[in-house]
Amino acid sequence: MLGLGKTPDQITKIASQIAGRGQPLLVTRADEAAWNAVRTVVAGAEYHQVARCITVKGPAAPGKGTIALCSAGTSDLPVAEEAAVTAELLGNTVDRMYDIGVAGIHRVLAHRDRLASARVLIVVAGMEGALPSVVAGMVGVPVIGVPTSVGYGASFGGVAALLGMLNSCANGVSVVNIDNGYGAGCIASMINHL
Amino acid sequence: MLGLGKTPDQITKIASQIAGRGQPLLVTRADEAAWNAVRTVVAGAEYHQVARCITVKGPAAPGKGTIALCSAGTSDLPVAEEAAVTAELLGNTVDRMYDIGVAGIHRVLAHRDRLASARVLIVVAGMEGALPSVVAGMVGVPVIGVPTSVGYGASFGGVAALLGMLNSCANGVSVVNIDNGYGAGCIASMINHL
Amino acid sequence: MLGLGKTPDQITKIASQIAGRGQPLLVTRADEAAWNAVRTVVAGAEYHQVARCITVKGPAAPGKGTIALCSAGTSDLPVAEEAAVTAELLGNTVDRMYDIGVAGIHRVLAHRDRLASARVLIVVAGMEGALPSVVAGMVGVPVIGVPTSVGYGASFGGVAALLGMLNSCANGVSVVNIDNGYGAGCIASMINHL
Amino acid sequence: MLGLGKTPDQITKIASQIAGRGQPLLVTRADEAAWNAVRTVVAGAEYHQVARCITVKGPAAPGKGTIALCSAGTSDLPVAEEAAVTAELLGNTVDRMYDIGVAGIHRVLAHRDRLASARVLIVVAGMEGALPSVVAGMVGVPVIGVPTSVGYGASFGGVAALLGMLNSCANGVSVVNIDNGYGAGCIASMINHL
Amino acid sequence: MLGLGKTPDQITKIASQIAGRGQPLLVTRADEAAWNAVRTVVAGAEYHQVARCITVKGPAAPGKGTIALCSAGTSDLPVAEEAAVTAELLGNTVDRMYDIGVAGIHRVLAHRDRLASARVLIVVAGMEGALPSVVAGMVGVPVIGVPTSVGYGASFGGVAALLGMLNSCANGVSVVNIDNGYGAGCIASMINHL
Amino acid sequence: MLGLGKTPDQITKIASQIAGRGQPLLVTRADEAAWNAVRTVVAGAEYHQVARCITVKGPAAPGKGTIALCSAGTSDLPVAEEAAVTAELLGNTVDRMYDIGVAGIHRVLAHRDRLASARVLIVVAGMEGALPSVVAGMVGVPVIGVPTSVGYGASFGGVAALLGMLNSCANGVSVVNIDNGYGAGCIASMINHL
Amino acid sequence: MLGLGKTPDQITKIASQIAGRGQPLLVTRADEAAWNAVRTVVAGAEYHQVARCITVKGPAAPGKGTIALCSAGTSDLPVAEEAAVTAELLGNTVDRMYDIGVAGIHRVLAHRDRLASARVLIVVAGMEGALPSVVAGMVGVPVIGVPTSVGYGASFGGVAALLGMLNSCANGVSVVNIDNGYGAGCIASMINHL
Amino acid sequence: MLGLGKTPDQITKIASQIAGRGQPLLVTRADEAAWNAVRTVVAGAEYHQVARCITVKGPAAPGKGTIALCSAGTSDLPVAEEAAVTAELLGNTVDRMYDIGVAGIHRVLAHRDRLASARVLIVVAGMEGALPSVVAGMVGVPVIGVPTSVGYGASFGGVAALLGMLNSCANGVSVVNIDNGYGAGCIASMINHL
Repeated sequence: MLGLGKTPDQITKIASQIAGRGQPLLVTRADEAAWNAVRTVVAGAEYHQVARCITVKGPAAPGKGTIALCSAGTSDLPVAEEAAVTAELLGNTVDRMYDIGVAGIHRVLAHRDRLASARVLIVVAGMEGALPSVVAGMVGVPVIGVPTSVGYGASFGGVAALLGMLNSCANGVSVVNIDNGYGAGCIASMINHL
Repeated sequence: MLGLGKTPDQITKIASQIAGRGQPLLVTRADEAAWNAVRTVVAGAEYHQVARCITVKGPAAPGKGTIALCSAGTSDLPVAEEAAVTAELLGNTVDRMYDIGVAGIHRVLAHRDRLASARVLIVVAGMEGALPSVVAGMVGVPVIGVPTSVGYGASFGGVAALLGMLNSCANGVSVVNIDNGYGAGCIASMINHL
Repeated sequence: MLGLGKTPDQITKIASQIAGRGQPLLVTRADEAAWNAVRTVVAGAEYHQVARCITVKGPAAPGKGTIALCSAGTSDLPVAEEAAVTAELLGNTVDRMYDIGVAGIHRVLAHRDRLASARVLIVVAGMEGALPSVVAGMVGVPVIGVPTSVGYGASFGGVAALLGMLNSCANGVSVVNIDNGYGAGCIASMINHL
Repeated sequence: MLGLGKTPDQITKIASQIAGRGQPLLVTRADEAAWNAVRTVVAGAEYHQVARCITVKGPAAPGKGTIALCSAGTSDLPVAEEAAVTAELLGNTVDRMYDIGVAGIHRVLAHRDRLASARVLIVVAGMEGALPSVVAGMVGVPVIGVPTSVGYGASFGGVAALLGMLNSCANGVSVVNIDNGYGAGCIASMINHL
Repeated sequence: MLGLGKTPDQITKIASQIAGRGQPLLVTRADEAAWNAVRTVVAGAEYHQVARCITVKGPAAPGKGTIALCSAGTSDLPVAEEAAVTAELLGNTVDRMYDIGVAGIHRVLAHRDRLASARVLIVVAGMEGALPSVVAGMVGVPVIGVPTSVGYGASFGGVAALLGMLNSCANGVSVVNIDNGYGAGCIASMINHL
Repeated sequence: MLGLGKTPDQITKIASQIAGRGQPLLVTRADEAAWNAVRTVVAGAEYHQVARCITVKGPAAPGKGTIALCSAGTSDLPVAEEAAVTAELLGNTVDRMYDIGVAGIHRVLAHRDRLASARVLIVVAGMEGALPSVVAGMVGVPVIGVPTSVGYGASFGGVAALLGMLNSCANGVSVVNIDNGYGAGCIASMINHL
Repeated sequence: MLGLGKTPDQITKIASQIAGRGQPLLVTRADEAAWNAVRTVVAGAEYHQVARCITVKGPAAPGKGTIALCSAGTSDLPVAEEAAVTAELLGNTVDRMYDIGVAGIHRVLAHRDRLASARVLIVVAGMEGALPSVVAGMVGVPVIGVPTSVGYGASFGGVAALLGMLNSCANGVSVVNIDNGYGAGCIASMINHL
Repeated sequence: MLGLGKTPDQITKIASQIAGRGQPLLVTRADEAAWNAVRTVVAGAEYHQVARCITVKGPAAPGKGTIALCSAGTSDLPVAEEAAVTAELLGNTVDRMYDIGVAGIHRVLAHRDRLASARVLIVVAGMEGALPSVVAGMVGVPVIGVPTSVGYGASFGGVAALLGMLNSCANGVSVVNIDNGYGAGCIASMINHL
């Protein structure tokens, strides 16, 4: 459930219903107010501060391989962690490779083996959003690009990164909405469970 | 190889190199002029008129399951066929379901079983680009949305469809560039070979 | 009267004039400050919190049929309720069908009979704004689409939903401004009084 | 059927099927090539040159009142006539008031009575798209605004007119896509048949 | 001097220099903080609250005729008053006609004589920005259009009004930046002093 | 009359009516086809090739002063000449200063006296559209900026020049639509006749 | 390091690492909170309030010549100072010429000699962003344009200035992101050290 | 001289004047028609077909070092060659490295030494425009990014590449207009002559 645009009361009510059915619960974009409302009502709830997510673990079939999760800069962490929390809740193993932007190409190359051993990759980047192109050129499996709203001026709240990823010259890159770590986590999990 | 923006001479030269190495050849966005240049030089080349593609078959490992390929309207055919030609060249079986736009929801529902039996789906749509959301809500596997430039006025050359797919309220939808049937075919093939 | 961009004093002054003439009063986008200013001056005023509207009932001819009011998600409620409050104040019966987004198409189909029995429909949706297309394909009467600013990233404050509705492939869909529940309520009422 | 983006062959094939079922036929955005292809195959077909439409008359219930059709300038004629042809084919009486742009407000005022006697209005305008606001302020029934791509420079292919109509300060205005005379004709007919 | 983007200290310093030279002083977009800083230092300063302007009167040659100042709605007042304060400080007589939006065309027509007797007009409008077209069609002298950021959704902070005015079908309309009452006041004064 | 978007037949018909009434005639954006149609029917018509205008002279009161007409580059000539032809037909004396872009600021400064002696100025510029700001800073009378679609890439068909002029830091600049030489000529003439 | 989008804790941690290696430290877009966190931990840190930068001096090779730094208005100071602080930290001499917008062209001309004696120039401007064109036309060395977000309405947060600079008609102008004083300082320093 | 938007006659006239003064001549964006007009009049003129440039060599001081010129794909050649022809005419040595897009990062890395030995670099790329970021991260000298209009769909005629370069996370990247090979060549030459 997307917490953004919902009141703490609305979130708590829906969260209770989901948790009450014994399903895994995930609330994304949950601020402190939402967490304080949910924690008093939903047993077993956890709050992931960087990812801004509330979860309750539930049964989940394990993924077949590893999901590699790359991000370009420090400010991309909240979106990357939202993807990680989502994928882990759905039963996947996530291999995090953070802070490997293309301006220091050796940082990407240093992870060549870890990248190559993933079954599917999530690549999170703001600003020019070039990391998915470089990474996709190094592997032969699907890469899900997540543009972030990190940047200023002509980044236009993530539009520059979004366009960069949509126009990727590398094979294998598909894209989700700006800052949509949750969506990327779901798709990667679907692919990893095939 | 993307034929768009290249001269027939440039296309023929690159195509000869690829075919000469015994690799499968695919030239997308190839017009009649490009085809007439290539056909005289590259043995075994075929032209797919609707898809605007030149191909030479080559060795390709078979995909694990079926790729379902849906499109919303008649005018989306060139992009859908580009995706189909790409996926088939890469060793996949493609199940085409054309002309099933959401304004006639029964047309989508009539294919429920075929949709559910696919390992991955490509959904091609212009105008409001709503088909991926509806289809993704009916299956539990990855859906690759391909917005097309079909439409006029406020479709802005496919932007409306692109935004529609990026903002999909359904889980499992990732998106490629406007009219990028080739990219969708590649990604679906990667997923289908996992 | 649109409360947005007016001071509580300006609102109260205009509201008093309208109510003083015995006409029904409607102030949209009225926050708590406006309500607190108006309630002390205008007798019989009511505040609709979700809809953010102040009303005073007045004489209104009854509509000929029912206005169906659909919305896609929980966050669309304020806009949907603004439309409902408007239509009801103008003498119409409103049949609310909330939380029936296209990602769960069975939720829409479950209301097939109620949708078909309406004389005119208002369909409120954010994100990809696909619901009007699906609904309009199921009925033969006018559908007024109301895009909402619900969403994030490439929803661009409702632009994605707006473009989706303007490019609807279904017959019968016309569109009002983003978040303009009031306008949709007025038009539906006009149609319902013909 | 939208002719735009379809080949003459595709149009002829679909047109034959529709006409073969005895239904009224309407092909919009049909150029001379499409017309020459259809006329040899479909009996009773007519071509409306200004409207760029092919029609075959069929049974249609008569509308309850008159549809007023206003346009702002000479260049708006093709879109206005597309709306007129559509509405007439669907059984409606259309009262045309052309060339009454707001820069000569007396031209609008001169038609006050004809405007007031309509059951629903279609208002077609390019450039600043102000005509629907003025007209809607003079009547109490629904006005369907059709922005056109007429203009240059900062009209951005009809965007200025579209935005003008979406932001109308008058009650009763809903909007369809740029140049979508067909859509406006359908909606007006639906309303006129209630 | 534009107060926006300057600190109270910067404003006070520049204001003192201007006033010290005996020139008329005008600070636009001045908030309460700026006013409180300036009032303690600059003798004879006045604050125009609606216009958000600080002024010190100075010698100004009288204009040749009257500047008519029209605005469409209540929320346009701050911009209209900024224009009025500017023009008056520069020695002009301003004839205010407020709240005469085009949705009630009789409100515009009621001022026909006052409009016709002006030497130059300033027309302030948000939303669809149609008022300058209507007014310019009724007079034969220059009309300066001032789009305002009044509106929501697809008004895009005044872009809809700006585009409407740039695409005016009436002769004599030129346009200044969104919310730029100051600029319009200056130009009208220049014209009125010729 | 704007010739753009009208057929030669439509143009000829309207032109005959205007000329038949003894009024001065001006058709802008008239291509060779329009000219060939008009010349055979309307006596005394002239064609201004660079300006793309058809005119028939008529009675016009002389302007009070001179209209200075500046343009930045060679490619701006058609728009500048459209303004000149318009202003001259309306009885004004036009002082042309062409090819004085701001990258060679001495070219602007060399005309300081001619600029200062004008009663009103029209400044035509594409690309970054900076010329009106520089010129307006050198005179104390109204400057009408005409952005042109000259440029490529990020000029976006004149948008860069339009935005540059709307954001001018100089007093006295108002703006018309991209390439709207006609509109600028009309406004300058109105001012010059006050 | 860009401070924007990082927490004080993240900034302090990275700053400590950099300073610990004896390298010069530069944190841009650092607010008071960041400064208060860093100052307690990093010895020798300085805060440049207007520039919003934290620095620790380190060894830097001296530049070969002078970097001229021009800005158009008072509100451009923070960006200009960010460029200055960056360039000075990297070993360069910076010659500041502030408040020389093109509306007062004599202000630019008054600095002709200082401009001509620079080895490379940084020109900072918001609104219409015309200053780089004028300055580049007066010198024969590289000019780095920095558009700022200063302005309102159709400045669109610096887009108008950005487009103005990208479309400069003068030779020698290249551009960095809106408000990117840091980037301009780096490039100018690179050029000044060649 | 920019040939785009000028007639062959205008080009020939200006070219004759420049060549007549013994200066080096460069006409960019010159099509075959322009070339055929110029060649008959201007002695010593050459046509560079891929670059679409006409040149006449003239005296030029030699640059101090080498200008490295990188491009991402085959379709970027015309823009890259325009930059090369410009730089060479101005006395520079150009080291071309073509077809080294980031999707095959080894192609970039293979040129590490040649890149590192340049005094300044021009990097030409369409689509996502990521190459300047990667290259700038590998060198310590200025990189001039030239976005090209190569691409389709969401490349928006080069906007995606432009935004990508403006938001580069690497130090040292400044940007020129889309397809502006000429501008990049000039700036690189200026830097190379310091």
